[in-house]
Amino acid sequence: MKKVTTILTNGVVITMNKAFDVFLNGAVAIDGNQIIAVNTTEEILKAYEADEIIDCKGQYILPGLINAHTHVPMTLLRGLADDLRLDVWLMGYIMPTERQFVNEEFCRLGTKLACAEMLRSGITAFADMYYYESEIAAVTAEVGMRGVLGQTILKFPSPDAESYEESLEYTRQFIEKWLGHDLITPAVAPHAPYSSTKEMLKQCAQLAMQYDVPVLIHISETMQEETDSFDHYGMRVVPWVKSSGLLNAKVLAAHCVHINKGDMLTLYEHDTTIAHNPTSNLKLASGIAPVTEMLENKLTVGIGTDGPASNNDLDMFEEIRLAAILAKTAANDPTALPAKQALLMATRMGAEALFIGDKVGSLEPGKHADLIVMDANTLHNSPQFRRDPDAVYSQIVYAGKSTDVAHVMVNGKWLMFNRELLTLTLDSLLEEAAIYAEKVDAFLKAHEDDILSKLLAVGGVERSESFEIQVKARIQDPQIVYKLLNHVDVEVLREVKYRQYDTFFMFDDKEMGRVRYREDDKINEQGDVSEVRARLTYTMPTKEREFNSAVLLSHSRFIAPADRPLRFYQEYFKASRTETLEKERQRWRIHYQDVLYYVNIDRLLSPAIPDFFIEIKARTWSLIDAQHKADNIQRMLEILGIPSDALVKDEYIEMQAV
Amino acid sequence: MKKVTTILTNGVVITMNKAFDVFLNGAVAIDGNQIIAVNTTEEILKAYEADEIIDCKGQYILPGLINAHTHVPMTLLRGLADDLRLDVWLMGYIMPTERQFVNEEFCRLGTKLACAEMLRSGITAFADMYYYESEIAAVTAEVGMRGVLGQTILKFPSPDAESYEESLEYTRQFIEKWLGHDLITPAVAPHAPYSSTKEMLKQCAQLAMQYDVPVLIHISETMQEETDSFDHYGMRVVPWVKSSGLLNAKVLAAHCVHINKGDMLTLYEHDTTIAHNPTSNLKLASGIAPVTEMLENKLTVGIGTDGPASNNDLDMFEEIRLAAILAKTAANDPTALPAKQALLMATRMGAEALFIGDKVGSLEPGKHADLIVMDANTLHNSPQFRRDPDAVYSQIVYAGKSTDVAHVMVNGKWLMFNRELLTLTLDSLLEEAAIYAEKVDAFLKAHEDDILSKLLAVGGVERSESFEIQVKARIQDPQIVYKLLNHVDVEVLREVKYRQYDTFFMFDDKEMGRVRYREDDKINEQGDVSEVRARLTYTMPTKEREFNSAVLLSHSRFIAPADRPLRFYQEYFKASRTETLEKERQRWRIHYQDVLYYVNIDRLLSPAIPDFFIEIKARTWSLIDAQHKADNIQRMLEILGIPSDALVKDEYIEMQAV
Repeated sequence: MKKVTTILTNGVVITMNKAFDVFLNGAVAIDGNQIIAVNTTEEILKAYEADEIIDCKGQYILPGLINAHTHVPMTLLRGLADDLRLDVWLMGYIMPTERQFVNEEFCRLGTKLACAEMLRSGITAFADMYYYESEIAAVTAEVGMRGVLGQTILKFPSPDAESYEESLEYTRQFIEKWLGHDLITPAVAPHAPYSSTKEMLKQCAQLAMQYDVPVLIHISETMQEETDSFDHYGMRVVPWVKSSGLLNAKVLAAHCVHINKGDMLTLYEHDTTIAHNPTSNLKLASGIAPVTEMLENKLTVGIGTDGPASNNDLDMFEEIRLAAILAKTAANDPTALPAKQALLMATRMGAEALFIGDKVGSLEPGKHADLIVMDANTLHNSPQFRRDPDAVYSQIVYAGKSTDVAHVMVNGKWLMFNRELLTLTLDSLLEEAAIYAEKVDAFLKAHEDDILSKLLAVGGVERSESFEIQVKARIQDPQIVYKLLNHVDVEVLREVKYRQYDTFFMFDDKEMGRVRYREDDKINEQGDVSEVRARLTYTMPTKEREFNSAVLLSHSRFIAPADRPLRFYQEYFKASRTETLEKERQRWRIHYQDVLYYVNIDRLLSPAIPDFFIEIKARTWSLIDAQHKADNIQRMLEILGIPSDALVKDEYIEMQAV
Repeated sequence: MKKVTTILTNGVVITMNKAFDVFLNGAVAIDGNQIIAVNTTEEILKAYEADEIIDCKGQYILPGLINAHTHVPMTLLRGLADDLRLDVWLMGYIMPTERQFVNEEFCRLGTKLACAEMLRSGITAFADMYYYESEIAAVTAEVGMRGVLGQTILKFPSPDAESYEESLEYTRQFIEKWLGHDLITPAVAPHAPYSSTKEMLKQCAQLAMQYDVPVLIHISETMQEETDSFDHYGMRVVPWVKSSGLLNAKVLAAHCVHINKGDMLTLYEHDTTIAHNPTSNLKLASGIAPVTEMLENKLTVGIGTDGPASNNDLDMFEEIRLAAILAKTAANDPTALPAKQALLMATRMGAEALFIGDKVGSLEPGKHADLIVMDANTLHNSPQFRRDPDAVYSQIVYAGKSTDVAHVMVNGKWLMFNRELLTLTLDSLLEEAAIYAEKVDAFLKAHEDDILSKLLAVGGVERSESFEIQVKARIQDPQIVYKLLNHVDVEVLREVKYRQYDTFFMFDDKEMGRVRYREDDKINEQGDVSEVRARLTYTMPTKEREFNSAVLLSHSRFIAPADRPLRFYQEYFKASRTETLEKERQRWRIHYQDVLYYVNIDRLLSPAIPDFFIEIKARTWSLIDAQHKADNIQRMLEILGIPSDALVKDEYIEMQAV
């Protein structure tokens, strides 16, 4: 008789191993954090003894469920706003609230709440993407759960970083801190292709490969994403991501709702795995992921709850069930994604999707002891037919509930026993969460009239680059611009002439930023107006600094088409002050040393200011790139022969008419 | 101070009245089976006093949920077989099991189980369609739940009737027994258009209108149903049902997955209501019902779980949530079917769909006291934002669980309190259910090799009419047939000549029936074979009787195309004996007094039998119609001048060659 730590007996053991062995009166022997043996109760009790023997009569014993995609601290934003369009939901509610509230404390509390809810739902491991991921890792390890935790990287400022370079550096430190931990696998999480630059994805891949950690990313969640990718890059999302080199790392891609057969082959070739999130996809009207085809194309697909702000809970039983039934209607075939396959995706295949399949995902000797025990003889799952050996999967998938879960063990340690959470204190958590909710309510109530919310309500809002680099000089002779345009390092891409009418909506509270309504009248060679367009630009408070005499602006900037008359916006934004500006602008889009810049020659008509102004501008998502571009603008000023002391810092709107 | 029976205080009262009033600290006063007042706790306690005052702090108080479509005794068939094609599931598992097991006792036990599960899920009223509905009514009334209960009527034999006429008679008695009951509304339930004849639907409508009770029916559940309807009747399902007159009754139509705008207008004009069953529709790959369009077209739509054999549970919270999120993806619009609308469909609008909206569905003075109290401050629903008054709907719909329900009251009586069922004893129910499951397992195991299962596995099986009426006579001169064909009451529709090769697969066990493989070689005017087709006919044991010397056969008969070689079927069906038959047949399809009959002149080649045979045949789903046709066949024999004693009763296969 070999002595082990714990023996579970008399349960229906569902191993989810390659042979899909099920022991109707089965037992599991666990020693330390390892599974030692899985067999009939009789055989196990012949070979092993333990101080802790748990009778699981009338219960299923199965591998812990793997939540393949979530954002755990977002429990604190659950139900914040529902039934809204994605842009209104994200930019109107979630992002402003995150900007205001997300910090280390928020992430720790939200993670505790999520871990409690996930344990109750039989989840033992999860893949997460959020901010301050090191805090999330600390809480997850304290609670004793397993996590593949990805630090989010965005091309625009995030709650924990001003630029993506800063995020990358934070991520490197995060990886070094957690690498090799028993429960935590640190990961790099560029948020999505549309919120990344190619250079950023390349650097994410390099970082992940350097430490051999996974990359977590959202891919092809909406049809819009595919359309935009084609418009901007002339290719679908997956090929564009591939072109960045990201797929050379170990990538777990969430959603993949709109990928096609070619994309699937690309993902398969690169061993990219997928997290399928059926509830979130339905609720946000993203669509139905082609899961059956993914599996036919040998892709590894896990199942995720997504964040509780778009679900609105962390219930894997609901998710597995929905994955199974939704696939049938999607494939127009009631035999598609049978219960056994759905449960596989939530256990062994889910673990493989998270790149931890060697450690967990099935009840097999040598694997870590991550398992759950759930009541089988419930009212909602009675009676039970035993004729078909696959009936157990059907019982768990089609009628099992998270509230059936009685015990949860991770890494050989009980985290829940008889429905009692052993490493978390619930009451104080709920109270703390309630206090946050009150604060968020108050904040959003105050924020309801704010400018971004109003802009979003108008529709079609896009976020623009975070960093602008610009110089401006007053000149007598506009012809000096040709010194630059004719220079050997410059290629002129396009030249246009506008008459621009700007109306600025200003607010007493500087924190509210300002909105510019601009009408661009394009002037053709005959001097006639050939095209008119109007758009709104909302600029949030700006940070200014200088590099080599160029002005570097960093701010959040949103652009939207203005398809209503100016008077509507005047009434709508309720500005405390309005100012107008009229000018003629000749604009060149150029490449200087193969990089894009804009050069303007402006003449101000109202306020009327004599002479001309020359501007050189560039935009970027990268702080390092911004500094590099400032250097180049300095060189262009030298070509133009404009001395530093000729530069003007004021904006046109600040100048006084003569 | 007015004295009432019960006051619920300090809860978040969600009235679901027309104004959608919500009282954050609300109370409900109940006297007897009626709601007397709904208001703030303060106002209620000023005006009313009661011996029973229930403090609902931290809880929601809302109307009981209405399950708009189910088959309650099918709890006993839950998980019997899953992930199968509809025909295999229904004809291979559900129907044989029902034929064998469904009786009064089965229905009583299954209903108890279902009532227990539904109460736990916050359901207070349900619409049911099954057999022995009077037993279901008795149990429902004993338990104290509210039911709109429809006795099923099919064109073929059902577990509780041999013919639809018998079902109609049973239904009439059922209605008379339960009409005017406080909790039970009896209803007429023709199963579906494809399992009805037009005459049968007409009679169902008459019966329902005579007693002013609802009609429950499945309509347009699958695309196949629409295609078949068009093939058979040249019109879609809804217009065909309308043409029967059924929609003149108060109809609650389940599913309506494939109805179009025109159908919706028809249903609206007839005040037909709809039961939407999202889980069942997804699981059986039926499709996604156009709920948003239904609501835009002012239809009254409730939400149903469908039977637990196709769901596999009776959890209204899962159903409401799925209805809300599925509609968003179906409409490609995340604002479609918001939480408030989804909850409305499960309460007030659901009650209207069941034609009991005057009694229940909202918390309003004068309505019956059907309500539930559920925990609001759960882990999976924390924190809670209060800024948006509609947030309560979102909390209940997107993150509420059936296990949050603490108390359930129907008609002023507590049926569940503190999660304890007060009118049902669970333990013995589960034991009895387990015994059934064992028996069913054993039956199906034995049944796995049976003929119908094998036929189903071959595919394309169709059920044929239950009643066949036929006469046969041996004649010398085949030309006598023209006495009939030229008769003034006869119209010849079509004439064909066949050479028919039959192979009969016989089994020692008579209960197994027999299979006929027939090759029909169609002979053209030149005497050449112009067309060959082969098909299988499986006939289950036959009941024979005589009407006016015609033989009336009643049996279950299934037909399938035989697209594989004969040898395959010989090996496949493993018959104990095979017999063959070869004959020449001249066949006329005729109308006699505008009713369809077949007339055959047969010459047997093998076994070779001299002379000719004349046969007159008809088929029908109606026992009364069968008797009527037998009378007409007798008249046709008189026209032919064939005396009764010239009739032959033996089948060809029973005759001996000379």
